[in-house]
Amino acid sequence: VSWRTIHRSTASRQAAVIDLGSNSWRLVVFAFQPGAWWKQTDELYETVRIGEGLGASGVLADAAIARGLETLDVFGRFCQAHELAPADICAVATSAIRDATNRQVLLDGARERTGLSIEVLSAEAEARYGYLAAVNTTTLTDGAVVELGGGSLQLVAVADRRARESTSLALGAVRLTERFLSEEGKPSSKAIKRLRTHVRDELSELGWLRDTGRRLVAVGGAARNLATAAQRRAELPHTGIQGYLLTADVLGELVDELAGLPAAERRRVPGIKPGRGDIILAAALTLQTVLETGGFDCLEVTEAGLREGVFLANTLLAGADPLLGDVRPDAVRNLAALYEEDLPHVEHVAELSLQMHDSLRSAGVVEASEGERELLWAAAMLHDIGMAVSYDDHHKHSQYLIMQADLPGFDPRERALIGLMSRYHRKGTPKLGDVAPLARAGDEALLARCAAILRLAEHLERGRDGSVSAVRLRTDGDDIDLHLQADGDLTLARWSVERYGDDRSFERVFGRRLLIG
Amino acid sequence: VSWRTIHRSTASRQAAVIDLGSNSWRLVVFAFQPGAWWKQTDELYETVRIGEGLGASGVLADAAIARGLETLDVFGRFCQAHELAPADICAVATSAIRDATNRQVLLDGARERTGLSIEVLSAEAEARYGYLAAVNTTTLTDGAVVELGGGSLQLVAVADRRARESTSLALGAVRLTERFLSEEGKPSSKAIKRLRTHVRDELSELGWLRDTGRRLVAVGGAARNLATAAQRRAELPHTGIQGYLLTADVLGELVDELAGLPAAERRRVPGIKPGRGDIILAAALTLQTVLETGGFDCLEVTEAGLREGVFLANTLLAGADPLLGDVRPDAVRNLAALYEEDLPHVEHVAELSLQMHDSLRSAGVVEASEGERELLWAAAMLHDIGMAVSYDDHHKHSQYLIMQADLPGFDPRERALIGLMSRYHRKGTPKLGDVAPLARAGDEALLARCAAILRLAEHLERGRDGSVSAVRLRTDGDDIDLHLQADGDLTLARWSVERYGDDRSFERVFGRRLLIG
Repeated sequence: VSWRTIHRSTASRQAAVIDLGSNSWRLVVFAFQPGAWWKQTDELYETVRIGEGLGASGVLADAAIARGLETLDVFGRFCQAHELAPADICAVATSAIRDATNRQVLLDGARERTGLSIEVLSAEAEARYGYLAAVNTTTLTDGAVVELGGGSLQLVAVADRRARESTSLALGAVRLTERFLSEEGKPSSKAIKRLRTHVRDELSELGWLRDTGRRLVAVGGAARNLATAAQRRAELPHTGIQGYLLTADVLGELVDELAGLPAAERRRVPGIKPGRGDIILAAALTLQTVLETGGFDCLEVTEAGLREGVFLANTLLAGADPLLGDVRPDAVRNLAALYEEDLPHVEHVAELSLQMHDSLRSAGVVEASEGERELLWAAAMLHDIGMAVSYDDHHKHSQYLIMQADLPGFDPRERALIGLMSRYHRKGTPKLGDVAPLARAGDEALLARCAAILRLAEHLERGRDGSVSAVRLRTDGDDIDLHLQADGDLTLARWSVERYGDDRSFERVFGRRLLIG
Repeated sequence: VSWRTIHRSTASRQAAVIDLGSNSWRLVVFAFQPGAWWKQTDELYETVRIGEGLGASGVLADAAIARGLETLDVFGRFCQAHELAPADICAVATSAIRDATNRQVLLDGARERTGLSIEVLSAEAEARYGYLAAVNTTTLTDGAVVELGGGSLQLVAVADRRARESTSLALGAVRLTERFLSEEGKPSSKAIKRLRTHVRDELSELGWLRDTGRRLVAVGGAARNLATAAQRRAELPHTGIQGYLLTADVLGELVDELAGLPAAERRRVPGIKPGRGDIILAAALTLQTVLETGGFDCLEVTEAGLREGVFLANTLLAGADPLLGDVRPDAVRNLAALYEEDLPHVEHVAELSLQMHDSLRSAGVVEASEGERELLWAAAMLHDIGMAVSYDDHHKHSQYLIMQADLPGFDPRERALIGLMSRYHRKGTPKLGDVAPLARAGDEALLARCAAILRLAEHLERGRDGSVSAVRLRTDGDDIDLHLQADGDLTLARWSVERYGDDRSFERVFGRRLLIG
């Protein structure tokens, strides 16, 4: 029985998070098995704009409440149709509803009409969920998290992965747009200056912001849109924005571009979602001011946000310390668990790959780049996931699935390299191809080394039965000797490795012949 | 519990077919569940050339037998490592071994060393497996099947899907190459003429060949390679060659190109596998002569061959009539079963789609193209399979999975249209894009109609619970009214359809507003 069969058939559960933001409302469904894997499986979205006019009046408008209740009817009906029990649904409201004096009208209406019980998050709780999303989907240990929503801005200082300071400010993008940038047409430089000054004044209260360390992780749709827009400007391959570094310089260029356009044209800037065209400038100016005030060089984007934070804290990791153990290996194992039917095989390929990589380094044949060993491990764990698509060309399908996944903790360059190593684990001469714009100097050699080792490991484990229990590569200077430790019959492994020897890829990469001892 | 969970956890079985051909030997593993789905999951390949020199001597050479037994050691070890029981392994030998007077040396050696029992197929049995592969992966009902191997050529006349006549001729590509085209360098026109005459003479015995009907399905690696080469020449998108029509004209161009090159350069022709460069010319000439002699305009290529025929007859359909009921719907259901977790949902979307398509035709709003209704049904069944990749962009993943699948019974154009309908079931304006070279006049309109209907059906079934049990579209000339029959609460369906109305894609396609009654 395959591992996949096991995890599919036991205890695959679902949970919904309903996120009632100041601008948009979302219902998101996650499927998961505690300790094994999780993924999003559905989403409903409605631009409710519950906070419309709230800044001026302090109350939710009647029309906004009516829109909200209608949307909740739909969300409630969706939960019913999908057999989501009340215990599986977590509905949370943020800044706009929290701040409205008449919020109880909405909450009572929701309970009466749909039975949904909405939790109004305190500013601290909202900040905490954003922080949890950030530390569970990036490698941030020390630094800060900024979460920019429609109503408010949360800032959290992080040390040793723990939240140390936390602040919520009324600097949401809808709020600032209504207050400073509501004129028709191109915004005036005066209005922009007033917005900047206002944000700077608010941030100046936070004495700790300059002392958190060099890393700033950004959470929220505005940051995601700005990262996508930056990727499009730079004509980078469309690899997704998980782990993308948006530098202060590039953010500055985006601000200049957006500030030169009326809202109706900002929504057409590639990467910006049309529904966000009006508020994206305020968001970009605010994030830019956070960078300046905190002295950060760039912000690091993650796909995850409040909803993932709520799901992780209240469901997947409920009752436990809500920090995933080790983000990068966890992300790799999560992706492997989703597609791989033979985990013992890929784990053994990973082990053999690392043994060969280590012995080539000990022998002085390879000088590894930073992080190379972990990328090789990740590719070995994921090289066969494309089998879930089809056996033919499964190496290409593995690359496709890896590039489609967020793989939290890795940046676009690293994901591309893992995808390429998997792509070349069977045949072909490794090339960076269309992801070359993401690469650093030396990456083509790194790819060639890792693909050659992974390919050899795959041949050693051709029987998928661990018959080669361990492997060492040794060199006397001229050739490289392959030393195998057997746990079973080696006929198949030897045949397969000889075919590998025939393709000479090892020799091309390492400049020495491979001798099969 | 999802359907996928059920079919994954119960009775997923595996079977191996070992195919000892005149040129190459292969071990192929299939996973399957009788009555539900099957797919290939692994493959070992070795160019054994067991028939080397057989034409001249009539016996298998000692060196060839030694290569064969070594390969069988490897195959046997693979079966052991994968826990394939003898009852799950079907090893068959074809023309070269059948014809060799000393074949028993190989068979005894195989049994002693590996325990494998090899069945030497009679010419009739070999032809039958090729025929079964053809009729189970194409819509052929009346016509002929040609299977070209290294040792022999099989021709089968088909009427009402049954084999009526069957012949095996010693016209395999290795055999003819050794006899007529073994000189170094570019083949002489005299040698080519002699080969053609020889093939024509052999075929002239088959009085029935001219009377089988207009369709000729080709089975075997040579036909697949030639189809791929033809696709490359025409710069068609790489959609796979299942169902590709190789016309006599295009085959003639390929023959001219290949005949102008020495073997070493033929292996570099795009689409031709390097290991087949020497024998591909003889194969192309032979197939061309079959077309001429039988009066066929083209040959229709299928990915399936002897191995699939053996698997279908002896395993998947063992004990039953070895004909799949209805190739096209079966192929769609097989693909859906592999990836789709919610079959009742897609079956309902398919039903609603066809109801709307039918009512638009009755109302005279749509004049459907040939086959349109079935393509719409197939797209509805497959539109969500990309969810197996990820929720985000699952419409694009569905298209990817459909284009990667063979989908037997459909040709490349039809697969492309099914993929595009799935691609556009959520958003975007349907465009043929890079598969335009495969399209016929009217296909862009066909795509737009079907995508608009599928999108509407998906909104009606947004709850995945069948709450819209039936749907009709009626028109008074100006607008189109949507009439829903309810089996449950319609809140979610109505909300979803209103959002659909907002995107105006229905109006753009059908030139009338959609009124939600």
